[in-house]
Amino acid sequence: MADSWVNLAETLGADLHLELSGSGSRRAVLMRGLREAVRSGRLAPGTRLPPYRSLAADLGIARNTVADAYAELVAEGWLTARQGSGTRVAEQVAPAAPVRRRHTPDRAARPTYDLVQGKPDPSAFPRAAWLASARRALTGAPNDAFGPGDPRGRAELREALAGYLARVRGVRTEPGRIVVCSGVAHALRLLAQVVGGRWAVEAYGLPFHRGLLTGAGVATVALPVDQDGARVGELAKERAVLLTPAHQFPTGGPLHPGRRAAVVDWARTSGGLVLEDDYDGEFRYDRRPVGAVQSLDPGRVVLMGSVSKSLSPTLRIGWMVLPEQLVDDIVAAKGEREQWSSATEQLTLADFVVSGAYDRHVRRMRQRHRRRRDQLVAVLAERAPHVRVTGIAAGLHAVLDLPPGTERAVLKAAAWQGLAVEGLADYRHPGFPAGPDKEDRDGLVVGYATPPEHAYAGALDALCRALPPA
Amino acid sequence: MADSWVNLAETLGADLHLELSGSGSRRAVLMRGLREAVRSGRLAPGTRLPPYRSLAADLGIARNTVADAYAELVAEGWLTARQGSGTRVAEQVAPAAPVRRRHTPDRAARPTYDLVQGKPDPSAFPRAAWLASARRALTGAPNDAFGPGDPRGRAELREALAGYLARVRGVRTEPGRIVVCSGVAHALRLLAQVVGGRWAVEAYGLPFHRGLLTGAGVATVALPVDQDGARVGELAKERAVLLTPAHQFPTGGPLHPGRRAAVVDWARTSGGLVLEDDYDGEFRYDRRPVGAVQSLDPGRVVLMGSVSKSLSPTLRIGWMVLPEQLVDDIVAAKGEREQWSSATEQLTLADFVVSGAYDRHVRRMRQRHRRRRDQLVAVLAERAPHVRVTGIAAGLHAVLDLPPGTERAVLKAAAWQGLAVEGLADYRHPGFPAGPDKEDRDGLVVGYATPPEHAYAGALDALCRALPPA
Repeated sequence: MADSWVNLAETLGADLHLELSGSGSRRAVLMRGLREAVRSGRLAPGTRLPPYRSLAADLGIARNTVADAYAELVAEGWLTARQGSGTRVAEQVAPAAPVRRRHTPDRAARPTYDLVQGKPDPSAFPRAAWLASARRALTGAPNDAFGPGDPRGRAELREALAGYLARVRGVRTEPGRIVVCSGVAHALRLLAQVVGGRWAVEAYGLPFHRGLLTGAGVATVALPVDQDGARVGELAKERAVLLTPAHQFPTGGPLHPGRRAAVVDWARTSGGLVLEDDYDGEFRYDRRPVGAVQSLDPGRVVLMGSVSKSLSPTLRIGWMVLPEQLVDDIVAAKGEREQWSSATEQLTLADFVVSGAYDRHVRRMRQRHRRRRDQLVAVLAERAPHVRVTGIAAGLHAVLDLPPGTERAVLKAAAWQGLAVEGLADYRHPGFPAGPDKEDRDGLVVGYATPPEHAYAGALDALCRALPPA
Repeated sequence: MADSWVNLAETLGADLHLELSGSGSRRAVLMRGLREAVRSGRLAPGTRLPPYRSLAADLGIARNTVADAYAELVAEGWLTARQGSGTRVAEQVAPAAPVRRRHTPDRAARPTYDLVQGKPDPSAFPRAAWLASARRALTGAPNDAFGPGDPRGRAELREALAGYLARVRGVRTEPGRIVVCSGVAHALRLLAQVVGGRWAVEAYGLPFHRGLLTGAGVATVALPVDQDGARVGELAKERAVLLTPAHQFPTGGPLHPGRRAAVVDWARTSGGLVLEDDYDGEFRYDRRPVGAVQSLDPGRVVLMGSVSKSLSPTLRIGWMVLPEQLVDDIVAAKGEREQWSSATEQLTLADFVVSGAYDRHVRRMRQRHRRRRDQLVAVLAERAPHVRVTGIAAGLHAVLDLPPGTERAVLKAAAWQGLAVEGLADYRHPGFPAGPDKEDRDGLVVGYATPPEHAYAGALDALCRALPPA
């Protein structure tokens, strides 16, 4: 603020412009607007105002009018004018308890390259197609779409999802058992509240989800993970097990068919629940997608999904496909009167799915992710052939295995290269003891869908430079 | 389902249509599509299929092809064909644990007229203007709008709200202290978590909010309400007080200026917080709006608002204007990684506010609500002059005072007239003893903004017929 001035014409707003074009005294209108802006805190103490010539031009009024208004406000004590410092808002004008500007700390210097998983390149959002769906949805929506609605979410969206999930993920359900929520994190909060007890979670998984469960009073125990996915044979008396069967997160393998059957058996025998986080089931590259575990027993498996990976995490739309006996409790926990997800966005997504735009977008992104994965694999084969890449058959990330004990050093080297990336240690369950066990491994989780197109080659280069030599 | 058949062409979806237009065997494609639809549960057991002539016409294929496919699927056991009952999905084809259709109970018969407060007529939603804002917002948004963002909400919206609230409600703040949330209920949940302790609430208020606080572990004590609003002089050691100063909800008066000052004094002296639910501050009819209490001390008052009353409760956008020292804790409670409100909706609302469309909409709605209020007052003056109407200077509802002991009977009479309306008893704090105290009064809370235009006169007529005779 020391060297430039505030855009006052904008701060004062459209109303002032209107008033200035009216028949009243322009000086008086401007003075009132300025006083009001200072009083309300919109103009903070110390803010530098534009030179009067400049403001006069912006507002389309005479320079003298602005000069007079400034002078009077200085006389009244609202502004100060000092040689070489321009006109500023006085430090002591607001009534008791002035609003001080919150000093938000500067963001930490941004890394040049970002390979942190879980954030699909935001420039890929299909703006035009989304807007077309929004237009159709808002034009065609019944009036009741703008009033309080079904606490499970808009029927149009639940219908569309039931069809889509049946077709693409083999899910067996009907719209009455789908509850729209704000995302998988929201789903987990609600399930923690309704199901409670102790849950088994994969030894490697999102720390964000674990933290959220602990915060909601659910204790988690770690289930070891190997190349066939979570070792569900070690399940005991847990109330539920949280799994990522399509593509173990983050280590990357699909759950072995035998284990898929075994976990459903466990649920039937023990009365437990399988919670299936289907976070990237649509993105499989080398063979047909593995269907959802949910289809093996819709009465014992909850499937959770969202558009966060496929479209954008900012839409805040996810879903839970529930066993019948859970629907009412989940709706009660969510709040009968709280939809959480905007109805207009829900209707837009319903149109997006039904019109085929979602399929087209997913197909386009699948090709793009696959190309990026191939590029990652090729670059590593050339520049770091000693580094094994795993978990590449699906998803938006891969795991680079590192020699034991080197993970921290590689992360530091990456930071030096201006590269943000995460290590496997970030994902390990705290109750899963580090040790000679082979699951306690060193590695990088590389989110290849994250960078914008133009930055991807540079990110891969930085990655290779951070890797240990052979 | 007994008398009509399913729209099979639609159920089978666009993919099947594409395949049918390809070069493969149409019979085989259709059979595969049908099997898949049954297996996935999209076609529930017992569902009646269309006659083959009809499906053939819908799909643009030969009748014989459909007839053959049906016959083979009957032979395979997927379908059944019985004289007089048409072709249906067999009852026993799905693998173990078939999905049964959830029998959602029919909604209770809807009342003919609805004067329940809190639900602005959904047909008034400004679809065209909202879409225009959505188009501008989505076209102009930076790419990062579709990635994870500021946990306080989009900067564009917080800027727009800071300006709007300063101009319209006299709020003193800056964007860094505004946190976007999903609505006032969400704000209360977050505040309950962060502030905790025991809160004073108005003796009349939303039971939904009280329940939500209790659920979040906050005990509430009732503060009596008279014609000058809540009796804040009776505040004691509570951690916070939840007030509706602009228009006491639901009894209807603004908080007396002396009490506005007193409650801020209480907060300063006791270290407590004033939580200002500014739910309808924009809708005042007979004189200038009372500014927000927040402006008296931005360091001790939290202002909460939303677009639920002014635009639509389904957008799920609200805001909290916070004292600086609460911002970080509230953001942490909300979840750094959970935006809750869609970024595209936030950007759309920002454009809607900045472009002046919000002002225009509020002005239009204010005129409409005022006209309805005047109509209510006029009709009562003519047909029930003995009934006193109060709380009419602002808001979207009024209170009709009833003779002591008659409230229940009037509500019953209203139900007989097909009219949904609520009594004051629904809003009374359970800890506020019924008795000879004048605050324990009988009355109706009449939401005059609720019905669509065409139904308003009928609703008023039903209301008058339910009122007790003079």
